[in-house]
Amino acid sequence: MQPINGYGVAKVLDSTHPNYAKDDLVWGFTGWEEYSLVTAPQILIKIQHTDVPLSYYTGILGMPGVTAYAGLYEVCSPKKGEYVYVSAASGAVGQLVGQFAKLAGCYVVGSAGSKEKVDLLKNKFGFDDAFNYKEEPDLDAALKRCFPQGIDIYFENVGGKMLDAVLLNMRLRGRIAVCGMISQYNLEKPEGVHNLEQLIGKRIRLEGFLAGDYYHLYPKFLELVIPAIREGKMVYVEDIAEGLENAPAALVGLFTGRNVGKQLVAVA
Amino acid sequence: MQPINGYGVAKVLDSTHPNYAKDDLVWGFTGWEEYSLVTAPQILIKIQHTDVPLSYYTGILGMPGVTAYAGLYEVCSPKKGEYVYVSAASGAVGQLVGQFAKLAGCYVVGSAGSKEKVDLLKNKFGFDDAFNYKEEPDLDAALKRCFPQGIDIYFENVGGKMLDAVLLNMRLRGRIAVCGMISQYNLEKPEGVHNLEQLIGKRIRLEGFLAGDYYHLYPKFLELVIPAIREGKMVYVEDIAEGLENAPAALVGLFTGRNVGKQLVAVA
Repeated sequence: MQPINGYGVAKVLDSTHPNYAKDDLVWGFTGWEEYSLVTAPQILIKIQHTDVPLSYYTGILGMPGVTAYAGLYEVCSPKKGEYVYVSAASGAVGQLVGQFAKLAGCYVVGSAGSKEKVDLLKNKFGFDDAFNYKEEPDLDAALKRCFPQGIDIYFENVGGKMLDAVLLNMRLRGRIAVCGMISQYNLEKPEGVHNLEQLIGKRIRLEGFLAGDYYHLYPKFLELVIPAIREGKMVYVEDIAEGLENAPAALVGLFTGRNVGKQLVAVA
Repeated sequence: MQPINGYGVAKVLDSTHPNYAKDDLVWGFTGWEEYSLVTAPQILIKIQHTDVPLSYYTGILGMPGVTAYAGLYEVCSPKKGEYVYVSAASGAVGQLVGQFAKLAGCYVVGSAGSKEKVDLLKNKFGFDDAFNYKEEPDLDAALKRCFPQGIDIYFENVGGKMLDAVLLNMRLRGRIAVCGMISQYNLEKPEGVHNLEQLIGKRIRLEGFLAGDYYHLYPKFLELVIPAIREGKMVYVEDIAEGLENAPAALVGLFTGRNVGKQLVAVA
């Protein structure tokens, strides 16, 4: 049976690979299991900084961190004063996108699916504004209220109706980084997106990306994020399930919005 | 009553503007009328080369030419050997996109809505292959047949179902220049586009553009196109309606595909 894979933090117990020695701490692509045999360590990065929680290497210092950093800074090139919107904004990636956008001097609004999450956005992550999309009968109206000037950058995590509403509110030469479309993954047939004509007159760029293309920027990324964590300029919220036996339920919870912050599983 | 505007070729009868003199030939944004008063000549370009048909300045040497040039070369940066697909490929812009792509050393396939148009694509414009989309019950299958390797660049003129089929056939790091979505303009509600998730894993860029942003490249554009026309390396097919009274019917014909090549109206 193939193990289920995912990003994890681990200690090397034994290694014949010259770059990894016994007792090294690493993060990267491993199995949902207590002990993993890693034969091709393409995505297995040695942990240098241990004065931060090791779990952060599954989040703010791991793949979600690089995703937020690359999607916002590399794909969207934010400029000071631009208007940034993040959906699924309290999740593993979204909470970081908002904080990176604030570091870049942008005005940032996020949406999430509960009052608790909206409060986190405004009071913990420093978003300028936030709304609960489940309580907005008209997403277009919600965005017009939050962005009377329109949106320069949209960090897309959800797809479907939300993307349609965003397209109506984008500004000239807006950029949309497509990170995920979680609202669509479990539908038999995806909802249609109906407002793509907006791309033309407004010269909007919609671009998909994967963190894996940007790991060469990881040292530069750490130079920004490690001091920001130490100085309290960036924070990270995790939702930790205890024990591998609780991992499946935690995974399912991602699709119903049960988790608050980055969902992770403490195995050992 | 406001005149209907459009791109035309005209002779200056009188001018108080220092850049335009009596008897200058110009192309640009004028009215659907015999005589126009142009008060703000932002898009009114003097015609320098008159050894080509003047009507070309409404097409291959005018806005459609700049649209094809900018959308393909500037938005999509084609590389030799890449696979290019053009929809509405026999139209004012599409026929030029295909020819520009051939000049760049690409493999080019176009689609159009009649056997006559498909023959034009293959026999006159030098497309490597072409198909009649109206005779393809399964657009995905048609594209897989024409592009067994997939598509690097899609020049989007139609939207809707065609875009959905293209998304399934794009290659890694594909580029889609969104020029128009003519299949959607007269629908009460646009068809949905359901396959945008493809953008993520394949890192596809979908970008809207307007020719108006690229007129600074017009001299460079002419340096390529004027010799290409003179040497017979580029050709252009026009569909000329005679008389202003036939203009409305010609416009309506665009939406049902009645025209073959660039639709224009000879006023005087």
